[in-house]
Amino acid sequence: MLDTKHIQAFERIVGKENVYSDKAHLIAYSYDATRTRFQPDAVVFPRDEKDVSEILKYCNEHHIVITPRGAGSGFTGGALPTQGGITLGMEKHMNKILEIDMENMVAVVQPGVINMDLQKAVEEIGLFYPPDPASEQYSSLGGNVSENAGGMRAAKYGITKDYVMALRAVRPNGDIIRAGKRTIKDVAGYNIAGILIASEGTLAVITEITVKLIPKPKFTKGYMGIFPSVEDAMNAVFKSLAAGANPVAMEFLDSLVVHALKEKLNVDLPESAGALLIGDVDGNVEEEVAFQLEILEKSFKANGAQEFVIAHDAQTREKLWYARRNASPSITYFGNKKLNEDISVPRSMLPEALKRIYAIGERYGFKVPCFGHAGDGNIHVNIMLQNPDEKQLEEAHHAIEEIFQLVVDMGGTLSGEHGIGTSKAPFMNIAFNEEEIALFKDIKKAFDPNNILNPGKMGLPA
Amino acid sequence: MLDTKHIQAFERIVGKENVYSDKAHLIAYSYDATRTRFQPDAVVFPRDEKDVSEILKYCNEHHIVITPRGAGSGFTGGALPTQGGITLGMEKHMNKILEIDMENMVAVVQPGVINMDLQKAVEEIGLFYPPDPASEQYSSLGGNVSENAGGMRAAKYGITKDYVMALRAVRPNGDIIRAGKRTIKDVAGYNIAGILIASEGTLAVITEITVKLIPKPKFTKGYMGIFPSVEDAMNAVFKSLAAGANPVAMEFLDSLVVHALKEKLNVDLPESAGALLIGDVDGNVEEEVAFQLEILEKSFKANGAQEFVIAHDAQTREKLWYARRNASPSITYFGNKKLNEDISVPRSMLPEALKRIYAIGERYGFKVPCFGHAGDGNIHVNIMLQNPDEKQLEEAHHAIEEIFQLVVDMGGTLSGEHGIGTSKAPFMNIAFNEEEIALFKDIKKAFDPNNILNPGKMGLPA
Repeated sequence: MLDTKHIQAFERIVGKENVYSDKAHLIAYSYDATRTRFQPDAVVFPRDEKDVSEILKYCNEHHIVITPRGAGSGFTGGALPTQGGITLGMEKHMNKILEIDMENMVAVVQPGVINMDLQKAVEEIGLFYPPDPASEQYSSLGGNVSENAGGMRAAKYGITKDYVMALRAVRPNGDIIRAGKRTIKDVAGYNIAGILIASEGTLAVITEITVKLIPKPKFTKGYMGIFPSVEDAMNAVFKSLAAGANPVAMEFLDSLVVHALKEKLNVDLPESAGALLIGDVDGNVEEEVAFQLEILEKSFKANGAQEFVIAHDAQTREKLWYARRNASPSITYFGNKKLNEDISVPRSMLPEALKRIYAIGERYGFKVPCFGHAGDGNIHVNIMLQNPDEKQLEEAHHAIEEIFQLVVDMGGTLSGEHGIGTSKAPFMNIAFNEEEIALFKDIKKAFDPNNILNPGKMGLPA
Repeated sequence: MLDTKHIQAFERIVGKENVYSDKAHLIAYSYDATRTRFQPDAVVFPRDEKDVSEILKYCNEHHIVITPRGAGSGFTGGALPTQGGITLGMEKHMNKILEIDMENMVAVVQPGVINMDLQKAVEEIGLFYPPDPASEQYSSLGGNVSENAGGMRAAKYGITKDYVMALRAVRPNGDIIRAGKRTIKDVAGYNIAGILIASEGTLAVITEITVKLIPKPKFTKGYMGIFPSVEDAMNAVFKSLAAGANPVAMEFLDSLVVHALKEKLNVDLPESAGALLIGDVDGNVEEEVAFQLEILEKSFKANGAQEFVIAHDAQTREKLWYARRNASPSITYFGNKKLNEDISVPRSMLPEALKRIYAIGERYGFKVPCFGHAGDGNIHVNIMLQNPDEKQLEEAHHAIEEIFQLVVDMGGTLSGEHGIGTSKAPFMNIAFNEEEIALFKDIKKAFDPNNILNPGKMGLPA
């Protein structure tokens, strides 16, 4: 529990109305998308960067722990106040699109802006902000930057880090840091923005984000490849890309997902479909779109595709995407408890990785439906359980450990886009050796010597 | 001078033939492209990563300063051993392309590989490594990463950091660090590769680089816009890009450069040309190339272009590029001493920035020809002097300081692609405040507590 004098100090900084310390509010702020619960001692809503600076300075002096929070939609516990202290709520006031600079094609936003709100605002004027995490309707850009969020369009357009041009952030000692510029090239000084991206709120609190925008391509078409087996589909992924295809997205649904879509949601899919690849291609001219579809069709068919469907209009495209969008809801068909990991491997490793992941699932007796962003090597692996008891949960944990080990052995990573937070922290020693973890600790200490910012996340000391 | 026992220790690690301590060699290794001289006490050539680790560990224990060196082609003194100690020569042994992985479209190289050698190797198999610094014929990829090198194709394809997927590096204590993966998405742990890029060899020694490759576009055409004035050309830059153009390159030559090209090199350029924009557009289909040329022609003409020339074939294209390629050699027409800065501003600021830069030049009585990568906001500003005396050099220094101040005031940066090193270190306080420089120092200390790696660069303590 936080001493009343600290609560009063926060009230002096941001005003009484911007500090919650009553039970109901603290419970409301104890969740994120991991569905585990940790209650903060208070929730403080800064109104601006100056407030953030004063709050951090105060907490640093009094060794009060801070957990920055955007929309609380993270899958790995980044916004959970596992060590108590205050939750810094960025969504209440620091949620404005400050500027859309058409001439330089950049947008400047506060961290609490919802991803989709930025997308819509820039598309209205013919521009495009590509990063589209599945949470785009409700996740905040501060969270997107802190976790380096990916999404479906990463295959062609890259991820959040590829669009961050500049950040403003506050260090634990209250220092306000400007990192990066509204310029494409900037090599003066250390790349501070580079290290803050994906740092999960452990190094500094981001107060302003400048992102690059690009012209919105004029033409988009959807496609679906229907494959007899997961292996065929996985081969088609890297072979079509190596053949020169550059699709906006190349999403994968395995045979369990296809089954669940049919059985649970009555989605109309071919009887024989063992795996699907669904995506979009785009271009400034129709011929570019046709060029992309041609490579895809040729490569898919050369790798066993039974059918290649092109969605020429928005309605057909919506129908193809309906299957992809409902992958996650459909798989509760296999159990009411889902353990969701987002591994990523070099794309050529996908066929072998999937084979081995299913083998692990079979050995433990778990259904493991897989789907996701095959075009960039990032797959969501879901261990499904029905009313699991302690023993089953422990076994599932072992299965996940085995999966991570094989992914790392194949040159892959624990997390393609969700982050480490608390939920993957126990597996950090699979991916990193002692020397690498020592370096992480040294960096953490350089930014945050009193360890007040989101301690205990990413496997770092609590 | 380095004690003989230290020289012998290095000889034990890498072999006698890989340590130079004789005068002739030390002089040969005392230069880089800045043409200032600092002699190392020894030059040591590691044969592999293990050697690098042992050398660093030894130096760390004995507080011997190390300057990593690739090709020594840097413009800001990054490879100059200003504090003596040893130069770590990466070009002799660690110069191999280790792998080109077509399936995942990545290449793995040692730091001493020359940029163009990688470009050629991957283009032979239909792939493309876009970063093309002007030094591409001789600069090394280790240097490119350490300075975050840009180039002409940055307008469409971005810069070195956009292609680095993973690094291996050695910390001053000898720890070998793996950063990043051969995957498009990876958000596990801090973005160590992100902070090593552009760190100018001050944090760790890079021993292996994994870069992303992309399919090589099939069609390329050249273009040239002929403008009556610099202001018209500069307006056309950001207006054509905001209109949706995405040229590979958009290079700018000002009226002084045009004059020098005509007078000194007899280049055939229109009488009336006050400024030129020269570049390429590319695409997978001819229609995309036509689409790009159409936007450019329309926007250029709407902004005062007298003529828009398209180079449909390689020969004509070569002719257009001849002018750009000879911009730098031509301007010695205005003096035998060139002070070359590479400022970068948000593109919409280019017209005003150029106007003010010329005004500063006029006030001091210097000719200041400007050219470069206008499409990404990066301009090479050249103060030309003829046999300058001390007083003129001091004045030139003041002029540069004024230029940097106006660039920073306009939201720009001291360096778009050359780095800070020693030559821009005196200006760091124009671009960064005390808090930001304090953070740089904290990061440096976290990686290199004994300050043995390239001390005194980037304005950090010697």
